[in-house]
Amino acid sequence: MIHSFGSDNHSGVAPEIMEAISKANTGFSIAYGQDDFTLKAQEIFKKMFGKDSSVFFVFNGTGANILALKAMTNSHNSILCPETAHINVDECGAPEKLTGCKLIPLPQKDGKVTCDTVKKELKGFGFQHHSQPKVLSISQPTELGTLYTKEEISSLAQLMHSVDGYLHIDGSRISNASAALGMKIEEFTKDCGADALSFGGTKNGMMIGEAVLFFKKELAQNFMYIRKQAAQLYSKNRFIAAQFVAFLNNDLNIRLATHSNDMAKYLEKSLSGIKEVKITRPVQTNAVFAILPREIASRLNEKHYFYVWDEFSGEVRWMCSFNTTKKDIDLFVSDLKDIINSIDNL
Amino acid sequence: MIHSFGSDNHSGVAPEIMEAISKANTGFSIAYGQDDFTLKAQEIFKKMFGKDSSVFFVFNGTGANILALKAMTNSHNSILCPETAHINVDECGAPEKLTGCKLIPLPQKDGKVTCDTVKKELKGFGFQHHSQPKVLSISQPTELGTLYTKEEISSLAQLMHSVDGYLHIDGSRISNASAALGMKIEEFTKDCGADALSFGGTKNGMMIGEAVLFFKKELAQNFMYIRKQAAQLYSKNRFIAAQFVAFLNNDLNIRLATHSNDMAKYLEKSLSGIKEVKITRPVQTNAVFAILPREIASRLNEKHYFYVWDEFSGEVRWMCSFNTTKKDIDLFVSDLKDIINSIDNL
Amino acid sequence: MIHSFGSDNHSGVAPEIMEAISKANTGFSIAYGQDDFTLKAQEIFKKMFGKDSSVFFVFNGTGANILALKAMTNSHNSILCPETAHINVDECGAPEKLTGCKLIPLPQKDGKVTCDTVKKELKGFGFQHHSQPKVLSISQPTELGTLYTKEEISSLAQLMHSVDGYLHIDGSRISNASAALGMKIEEFTKDCGADALSFGGTKNGMMIGEAVLFFKKELAQNFMYIRKQAAQLYSKNRFIAAQFVAFLNNDLNIRLATHSNDMAKYLEKSLSGIKEVKITRPVQTNAVFAILPREIASRLNEKHYFYVWDEFSGEVRWMCSFNTTKKDIDLFVSDLKDIINSIDNL
Amino acid sequence: MIHSFGSDNHSGVAPEIMEAISKANTGFSIAYGQDDFTLKAQEIFKKMFGKDSSVFFVFNGTGANILALKAMTNSHNSILCPETAHINVDECGAPEKLTGCKLIPLPQKDGKVTCDTVKKELKGFGFQHHSQPKVLSISQPTELGTLYTKEEISSLAQLMHSVDGYLHIDGSRISNASAALGMKIEEFTKDCGADALSFGGTKNGMMIGEAVLFFKKELAQNFMYIRKQAAQLYSKNRFIAAQFVAFLNNDLNIRLATHSNDMAKYLEKSLSGIKEVKITRPVQTNAVFAILPREIASRLNEKHYFYVWDEFSGEVRWMCSFNTTKKDIDLFVSDLKDIINSIDNL
Repeated sequence: MIHSFGSDNHSGVAPEIMEAISKANTGFSIAYGQDDFTLKAQEIFKKMFGKDSSVFFVFNGTGANILALKAMTNSHNSILCPETAHINVDECGAPEKLTGCKLIPLPQKDGKVTCDTVKKELKGFGFQHHSQPKVLSISQPTELGTLYTKEEISSLAQLMHSVDGYLHIDGSRISNASAALGMKIEEFTKDCGADALSFGGTKNGMMIGEAVLFFKKELAQNFMYIRKQAAQLYSKNRFIAAQFVAFLNNDLNIRLATHSNDMAKYLEKSLSGIKEVKITRPVQTNAVFAILPREIASRLNEKHYFYVWDEFSGEVRWMCSFNTTKKDIDLFVSDLKDIINSIDNL
Repeated sequence: MIHSFGSDNHSGVAPEIMEAISKANTGFSIAYGQDDFTLKAQEIFKKMFGKDSSVFFVFNGTGANILALKAMTNSHNSILCPETAHINVDECGAPEKLTGCKLIPLPQKDGKVTCDTVKKELKGFGFQHHSQPKVLSISQPTELGTLYTKEEISSLAQLMHSVDGYLHIDGSRISNASAALGMKIEEFTKDCGADALSFGGTKNGMMIGEAVLFFKKELAQNFMYIRKQAAQLYSKNRFIAAQFVAFLNNDLNIRLATHSNDMAKYLEKSLSGIKEVKITRPVQTNAVFAILPREIASRLNEKHYFYVWDEFSGEVRWMCSFNTTKKDIDLFVSDLKDIINSIDNL
Repeated sequence: MIHSFGSDNHSGVAPEIMEAISKANTGFSIAYGQDDFTLKAQEIFKKMFGKDSSVFFVFNGTGANILALKAMTNSHNSILCPETAHINVDECGAPEKLTGCKLIPLPQKDGKVTCDTVKKELKGFGFQHHSQPKVLSISQPTELGTLYTKEEISSLAQLMHSVDGYLHIDGSRISNASAALGMKIEEFTKDCGADALSFGGTKNGMMIGEAVLFFKKELAQNFMYIRKQAAQLYSKNRFIAAQFVAFLNNDLNIRLATHSNDMAKYLEKSLSGIKEVKITRPVQTNAVFAILPREIASRLNEKHYFYVWDEFSGEVRWMCSFNTTKKDIDLFVSDLKDIINSIDNL
Repeated sequence: MIHSFGSDNHSGVAPEIMEAISKANTGFSIAYGQDDFTLKAQEIFKKMFGKDSSVFFVFNGTGANILALKAMTNSHNSILCPETAHINVDECGAPEKLTGCKLIPLPQKDGKVTCDTVKKELKGFGFQHHSQPKVLSISQPTELGTLYTKEEISSLAQLMHSVDGYLHIDGSRISNASAALGMKIEEFTKDCGADALSFGGTKNGMMIGEAVLFFKKELAQNFMYIRKQAAQLYSKNRFIAAQFVAFLNNDLNIRLATHSNDMAKYLEKSLSGIKEVKITRPVQTNAVFAILPREIASRLNEKHYFYVWDEFSGEVRWMCSFNTTKKDIDLFVSDLKDIINSIDNL
C-alpha cells in the first residue's frame, strides 16, 4: 500500500522498535510483567515522572483510557470530556461499559475545553439523583490536532482538584505534543497537576502497547486487578516493555514525533496557495484538517487514503506519520492540483 | 534466564513467527483488521473451519474467552465450567464483569467434566429466580494437561444443544491437543458440534494474539462491536494476523506443539524411577503434574522455575515449551536427584 | 406539611388506591406475580393495549425505564434522548450502569425532540467504533410539562423503525398526557408505533409501582429474568397490582390527572396578571415553569415548597397534584403577591 | 386462597402494619426519604444499632443484599457465601451483575459455614489473577431455617476482619432469629462484629421494604448514589418508613416472628409420630424441612401449597408465617395422615 493519510496507525513500526522486539526474544522469562524488560521500562518511566508515579502496561489506547478511568471512579460518578473526545465518539461505549459511569460531553473549540465550560457541569454534588462529577478527561494533543498550553492544563487540573476530582490526559499522541511544545512530557502533564496519563506509542512507530501512568499512589492501588479483570494483562509483556525502552531511549519518541509534526507543517505549507482548500484547524501537531469541495475530496480519495472527519460539513483529516516523506506529500499535493485543474477545465 | 518450567508462556517467540512479524512491517496498511494480512489469516481459518465459521482476532486468551462468552449469553444466563477452569480461577472475575453472568463451577476429574455432572446444573429453565444455563465452557487440553476424546466433546455439545445452549472450547493450547490426538483441530471442535473456540498461540511460540472462532453465524453477528467495546480491537492487526499465517502454515503450530508434548513425555519418563515423585495426572500434552516432598520441591524451586499448583496438597506443575530441550530436562532431573540424595544422606 | 408544589410525588395516595391496597390484604397468595390481583391487572392492560402487548410490574420509574431500555438493547448500542430527559439528568447514571450503553443527549425545545434532531445521530451504523443507535426514549408528557402530538410520536416511531430501532416512552405521567390530549393512552403510544412504555402512577395518586409495557413480543421474551436480576421483582406483587386495578377502573387515573392538569391551568391563569412572573413553557399538563426575580422566588420558597429547575436562569417549577386545591393555589398566589408588594414598597 | 406453606411471603400484611401505612397518608411530604416518617425510622434504627450505624431503605431483599455487597466491594473482589445462600441460588445472577464480582460458593451444613471452610478460600491475596476475597455473606437464619450462634458469628467476623474483609448478614428473616435466640438483633449482628445487615420485614408481616444497615461509616459513604443508580430509591418513602416504625414499635416484629417460629415447632411436633416423614434440618425458626415419599408429597401438594426444595432428594420445605394458625397446621397434618392411610390401605 502506498502512503496513507488515513491515520498515523496506518504506518508500520519504526526500525529501532522492531529491532528491540527481536532482541527481547532471549529465551525464557517470567510472564505477566515480572521480566527484566518490564522492570527496565518501569524504571525509565519512574525516572521521568518521579518516584510517586506508577506505570502499568496495557495493549492499546482504548484499554489505557478506560482502565485509567475505572481506577479513578465509582460507577455513580460522571466523566467529563470534550464532545469530540475519542472516549466519547470512537470507543463504541467502552468507557460506559467498563466503568458504569455517565459521560458528560462538553462543548469545545478545536477539540479543547475551557475551565468555564467544565465549571458548568461541576454541579449536583451531594445530590443523589445526579451522577457525581469526578474526572475530566482531555486529549493532548486533541483529536483535532491542537494543543493545550501548560497553563491551560494547570488550570483544568486545579479546577478538578478543587472539587476533589481528577484530571486524566489521553496521550495517545503525547510525544507529538512534547515535540510541538518543545517541553518534556512530564512538564505539561504531571507537573501541571494531571493525575493520570494514557501514554501512547502505537501511533508514533511502536507496534503495540500503551502505558497507563498515575501520579497519585491511591489511583494505582488496585490497578493490577482492574487490568487483569479487563483482559489487558499481557503474558509476554517483555515484548511491549522492550518497545517502550527503545522508544524512550535517546528521545526516539520525540524524533519520530518531530518528523510527523514537521510533515504536517510541510503539508499545510504546500496547500497554502490552493484556494479550494481551507485549513480548518490550527496545525499544531501531525494532523491537517481541511474543507474542500466534495467532488475534489472524493476524487483525491480514490488515489490517497484518508477519512472524511465530518460528513455534514465535509471536513477531512490528513494525518502524517513518522515515516511520511516529503515525496509522499508532494505527490499528494500534486495529485490534488491535477484534480482541481481537471475540474476547472471542464 | 535459564529454562523455565513455570509456564509455556515463559518461553519466547518461535523464529518463524518473529520473522513473520518483521516481514509484515511493509509500510502503510489500513488499521483495525482491514489489511491484507488479516484477510489472509481469515481465509486460512475459513478454509480450516468451513464457510459458516467466523474468525476474529483479539489480544489475549482472557480476551478471547470472555468476549466469546459475552457473544453467547445475556447477563441473566449462567456459564457452566469445570471448577478448575481458567475462566473460573485465574481471570480475576473477568467473565462475570464483562458478561454479568453467574459462573457455575462443576466438579471435575483431572480437569474434565462429564455429561452427568453438567446435567445436574441444567435446571431451573423458565424459573425467573434462576440464572438460565446457556453455555458450557471446557478447556481442550484442560488446565491439568488432559484431553477430552472426540466422543466426549460431541456428547457435551449435544447435551448443551438439547437445552438450546452452546459449547465453548477454551483452546489456549489447542495445537497441543491436536498434536496429541493426532487429529486436525476442526475434527474435535467444530465437527463435534462445538459452537465457539478460543484459538490460542501465545503458549506455543507466538508473540501475541488469539483468535475467536464461531461456528454459528448468529454468534458472530455483533462480535465486532463487542470486541471494540471490550478494548480488544487492535489497530495494527496485521502484526497479529501475520503471526497466525505463519503459525498455521505447513503445520508449524503442530510441530511446535508436538515438540512440547514430547518433552513432557520425556520428563515423565525421566522421572519414572524416582520414588519420591508421584505423577498425579495423565501426561497427555505438555504438562506434568506431580507430588513430591515439600522440602525437595522447595529446594528444586531454587534452581528451576515452576509453580506450586495446589498449596494444600503440595502438587506442582511442570510445563514444557516449544523450545524446551532434552538437555533442559536432563539438568532438571539431575538436580532433582541430587537434592533427593543430599536429603537422604542427612 | 402544607401543600407542596415541589413534585407530584410529594402528594399522598388517593383514597381509592389506599382502599384497594387494604382490600388486597386477604390472607395468603402466591408470591412474585402469580396472584389473582396481578392476573387481573395484566388482563386490564392487555385489554387496553391488545393481545400482543406484555405487561410487567416493577417498583418505580427508574426501574421501569432502565429495565425497558435493557430489554431493547445490547451494551454496544446507544440510547438517544432529549438532553432534558429524566433518564439523562436525574438517574445518577442508572441507564448506563444497567445497560452498558452510551446515552446520546439530543438538543430539545421545551423537552421535545424532532425527527431532524434525531436523524443527526442516526449514524455510524456498521462502523465498529461507534455505539450503534438503537432506541429513542422520549417522555410524554416531557419533563417540561409539554406534549408530543400523536403525529409527532408516529413520525419518531417510524424514523426509529426505519433504522431497525425502537421508540420507548417514559410515561411516568402518562395519564396526565391522556387527560390533556383527550385521547386514550393506547392511541398516542402503541397505536403510533411506540415499542415500549413505562406506565407510571405514583405521581398521580398511587402509592408505589410502575408498569412496563412492550408492544412487540420479542422485547418481552427475557424480561422476567432482566427484572429479577435487576432486583425489581416484588414478592407481594398483589399490592402493586391491586393499585393498578383500582387506578384503571372507571378512569380513576384520568380523573386524578385531569384535576392536576386543571390546577396547573388555574395556577397559570391566576399568575397571568403578575408582571414579575414570566411563564416559560406552554402549560399543557400539571407543571408550570416560570422565571421570576430571584429574591421573590427565594422568599416565596420559605413559605411554599418548590424547586429551582435551572440554577443558571433561575427558572422554577411548580407542580400540581391530584390533591392540589384551588385554595392551595389561591394561598400561593396571594403569598406571592404579598411578597411582590412588600418588595415594591421598599 | 387457603393457608400456604409455600413461603412466609405468601402471607399478607399484619394489621398493625396496614394501619401504619394508612396513617402515613397525611397529604404532602417531601419525597426520596426526607419526610418525617423516614427520619423517625432512621432514629429508631440508630437507637438499636448505635450512632455509628447508618440505615437506608430499599424496596426488597434482593435489592438490600446486592446494594450492600456493592458498597463493600470493588468488581475485582470475590464474595464468599454458603452454596445454599439466596444470593447464590435465587437471585438470577443479580449480585454478579451489579457488583461485577465473582461469587465463591462454600460447602455448608444445614446452610451454615464454618471458619475452616471460609479459610480455604481466603487465598490469593495480592495475586493479580485471583479475585480478591472481600466479603463473607451469611444468612441469619439460614435458608435452611437454622441459626448461627453469637460465637459463630463473632468468629466469622473476626476471620474476615483479619484479612481486611467484611461480614455481611442477609437478615431477610432476622426477627425470627432474634425471637428464636432470645437475643436482641444488635447483639448477634453488630455486637458480634458484622459490618452490614440486610434487615427484612416483608416475610414477617410487612408489605414492602427492607433496610440496609452499615456498622462502619466508610461503607455508608456512597450508598445513597449506589441506591439511586440501582433503582432502589423510593419517592414516597414514608410508606416504607412508616411500616418499619410500626414494625419495631413495642417489639411487633418479635411478636410476629415468635408466632411463626412457634407454629413451626408445633408443626414439627405434630409430625413427630409419622414415620413416613423425616425431618431433615433442625427446626430452629419458622421453617420445617422434611423428606417423605414422593407420592405422598405430591398428593399433599394438591391440597396444600408448598415447594419441593431439592428435586434430587425430594426434600420439601414448609414455611410458617405470622398468620399461620394451629388450625391450619392441624388441617395440614390431618390431610397428610389421610393420604398416608389411603396409600397404606391400597
